[in-house]
Amino acid sequence: MSAPTPLDPTLLAGGCAGPAALRPLLETVLTALADGAAERCGPLPAGGPDAPEAHVGGTVIPERGTGAHEALGALVHALARGAADPADPHCVAHLHTPPLAVATAADLAASALNPSLDSWDQAPAASALEARVTAELAALVHPSAPAPDALVTTGGTESNMLGVLLARERHPAAPRVVCGENAHHSTRRATWLLGLPPPLTLPTPRGVLDPAAVRAAVEGLPPGEPVLVVATAGTTDSGAVDPLPALADVVAGARRDRPAGLHVDAAYGGPLLFSPRHRELLAGVERADSVTLDLHKLGWQPIAAGLLTVPDRGALLPLTHRADYLNADDDTEAGLPDLLGRSLRTTRRADVLKIAVTLRALGRSGLAGLVDDVLAAARLLGRRIAEEPKLTLQAAPALSTVLFRPAGAGDDRVAAIRRRLLADGSTVLGRAWAPDAEGRRRLWLKATLLNPRVQESDLTALLKLVLERAAEPAAPARPAPRSSLLSLPDQRKPPDDRR
Amino acid sequence: MSAPTPLDPTLLAGGCAGPAALRPLLETVLTALADGAAERCGPLPAGGPDAPEAHVGGTVIPERGTGAHEALGALVHALARGAADPADPHCVAHLHTPPLAVATAADLAASALNPSLDSWDQAPAASALEARVTAELAALVHPSAPAPDALVTTGGTESNMLGVLLARERHPAAPRVVCGENAHHSTRRATWLLGLPPPLTLPTPRGVLDPAAVRAAVEGLPPGEPVLVVATAGTTDSGAVDPLPALADVVAGARRDRPAGLHVDAAYGGPLLFSPRHRELLAGVERADSVTLDLHKLGWQPIAAGLLTVPDRGALLPLTHRADYLNADDDTEAGLPDLLGRSLRTTRRADVLKIAVTLRALGRSGLAGLVDDVLAAARLLGRRIAEEPKLTLQAAPALSTVLFRPAGAGDDRVAAIRRRLLADGSTVLGRAWAPDAEGRRRLWLKATLLNPRVQESDLTALLKLVLERAAEPAAPARPAPRSSLLSLPDQRKPPDDRR
Repeated sequence: MSAPTPLDPTLLAGGCAGPAALRPLLETVLTALADGAAERCGPLPAGGPDAPEAHVGGTVIPERGTGAHEALGALVHALARGAADPADPHCVAHLHTPPLAVATAADLAASALNPSLDSWDQAPAASALEARVTAELAALVHPSAPAPDALVTTGGTESNMLGVLLARERHPAAPRVVCGENAHHSTRRATWLLGLPPPLTLPTPRGVLDPAAVRAAVEGLPPGEPVLVVATAGTTDSGAVDPLPALADVVAGARRDRPAGLHVDAAYGGPLLFSPRHRELLAGVERADSVTLDLHKLGWQPIAAGLLTVPDRGALLPLTHRADYLNADDDTEAGLPDLLGRSLRTTRRADVLKIAVTLRALGRSGLAGLVDDVLAAARLLGRRIAEEPKLTLQAAPALSTVLFRPAGAGDDRVAAIRRRLLADGSTVLGRAWAPDAEGRRRLWLKATLLNPRVQESDLTALLKLVLERAAEPAAPARPAPRSSLLSLPDQRKPPDDRR
Repeated sequence: MSAPTPLDPTLLAGGCAGPAALRPLLETVLTALADGAAERCGPLPAGGPDAPEAHVGGTVIPERGTGAHEALGALVHALARGAADPADPHCVAHLHTPPLAVATAADLAASALNPSLDSWDQAPAASALEARVTAELAALVHPSAPAPDALVTTGGTESNMLGVLLARERHPAAPRVVCGENAHHSTRRATWLLGLPPPLTLPTPRGVLDPAAVRAAVEGLPPGEPVLVVATAGTTDSGAVDPLPALADVVAGARRDRPAGLHVDAAYGGPLLFSPRHRELLAGVERADSVTLDLHKLGWQPIAAGLLTVPDRGALLPLTHRADYLNADDDTEAGLPDLLGRSLRTTRRADVLKIAVTLRALGRSGLAGLVDDVLAAARLLGRRIAEEPKLTLQAAPALSTVLFRPAGAGDDRVAAIRRRLLADGSTVLGRAWAPDAEGRRRLWLKATLLNPRVQESDLTALLKLVLERAAEPAAPARPAPRSSLLSLPDQRKPPDDRR
């Protein structure tokens, strides 16, 4: 309880004195971020998991502290130097977005004020803001619905789980989930978590669900068994969008025989709704019983910014939950908002702030511009690949994902080239299995374009790097030294050496 | 794909240019935080949920954006003005911590770099840092265990759910959870989520589990049925610590007849392990099969900073999960770390960074000093209450929670006084049911002290405010105007007016 000194590492971020305490520390952070990025000088550190750039020195819990500036400088610098930075135009493996500066700055205020969205008396303004943002975003997804609403989640995995949970709770018996092979892995993980049978998973040889196959599968279920069809609007592997109107028709038809629902995982594709040019790709999504949306993908938010939308807030009633210290009946009756049913979490960060600030700063049209830019970049990359005889394009990009491979390379070679580019520190590409022109399942390199600042020259350089690596002879299959495992991708380590 | 201008709201936070883009935006945030706090001038805005201070104006998704500085200034200012700020010494309702400036500044770097902990190629250095921090923190909980490990979670609720999930998965049949009435509500919610029978919940008239009652309850279960005993080290209501060594003995004894495990929810009390003065209160926790720890409580982290520790990392194997795009077998064999089994989430923020920076900046001894300070403050408050004849102390504080009530007030009156203080904007107190000296269950005011900067004068002023409100006549039971519902706490609104 002694008075703090200016360099005291126990100064607080909140209150009237918080901003003054934060200012010099933030300067230390910005300097470390800039220095780390300059030293990394690329999308990720070269050398793979064993490179010193990917590690930090010293003990994690020293007996005596090193002080706020030393600790911030050392660890932020290490993290920046050893980052895979999605702001680099060659960091395109995953739905791993480069966050906007405006959203990132807003996120600082959520950390400093630390509102917790599980009770009004921890978050008066934050809870009011969240209610408005969730209602307006849900209305974007379900524009004709009477009372659209949304929950803020940690991401698509939690949103998909909530979609399955709501189906479990609204039906008298456990529902069977029906999805495609193209569905995100979190659908299956949700059924496991929730104690449901595994999903009935249908082949998707063309990358999307076949409505006729879904209808047949549903009709093959035991009479009366509830069903939840899970469709995807923007698959992780290729960005493909399932035929939502036809699937909504299948679900509507199934309701003659059984309780039936439709959940759409639009974690990736959802923000196309901002864009007049592209929103038609999501037609039908408004008919879903629940929809997953991730603004930390095509929404340029720092993690986490997930949503689950429903056309009617009554659908969220199964999450109602009482804890006397947070939402006692007499407090609720006296007018205190009851927030506990708006998440499966209790303590909950105000991730809504950065979303609200971004929506206001850019407007609907500003976000549409960014969506249009990355989809245009993907189409440009697709054309460049199609024009290059040494490369094979899997298909014209549906959203912003481009699958391609060096012409004639085997699947192992494709995997090795990807790891070689990672080990170089030159390019972070993803991988995906998808059919080739003859319908054979092949491994492809995956470029997921999310960076609205990407330039045509970046795409040209990216393809040049891939072509260079593809032209090299495959690495020999000899034991790898610990320091360069990634540069010898065909090497198989003995089991006792696995990490 | 046009070049950005300095005021462009679409500038990115990452890369070499990110820090320069962030700097002026952060200044806008700090100014808005300072102005909002000064205008609020207290722990929360006066007037309750209907006060304009708790709301923000304008549409949430305008057609055209207002720009980064306007949006940040307006919304951060509104959030600060309408916050319940735990850095204010009269904001003591919940386990809602005032975050350290150093941790908050570190959190900015996690947002800016945006590493995602679901695959190495999205988080090279962050994943290495997380592995070290989780191993060292787990070793603090399980010092003699061969391979302690921990998962980073969104908080105690997720950690408790994971503890129950691991029990479900390690036993051949569904385990029965046995806990006390004093357990956190998330224990029951976890069994519901996971499709397990509800917990066998034992009365805890003295605030803690009775080991003999637990033994009897376990012995009364069907032969061979697996059991998970959930104990609490720091209850939400009173900070009480269940008798961990005796409960560990009960579980050890039960293993003669059935699979049995012990999960300890030390979300609140866990960080006492940093303190040589107080760590003895947690003796026995090292014998648990899993332990919940929240560093966004007694750890002064911004939300979220939850952990689940286990004595042996093998216990985490049930979370193993494959998704070819994130942890393909051939990539794992080539040396790429497999991170997907370290969470039920997929995309996952680097909450570990702020934890690591705080541990390094303050050291073990610095955190111990903060723990000791808040426990000392609670004991001081307890003594002040015991000395005041117009107040009744429920019991000497176990950790940093103090339960008390105006002498002679009924339960409804206690609830009303709490709401009146909230509506004033003068004090944010919590509430809890606990026995009085005659063993009768009563409602108490709850002060949860987490602010290491609290002064003796703050505690004196807090009690003075409570005494003033307690001396006022109870509000009459007449219809409340919408603008002051909270000032008329005994009022019951008609159902159609409920929010």
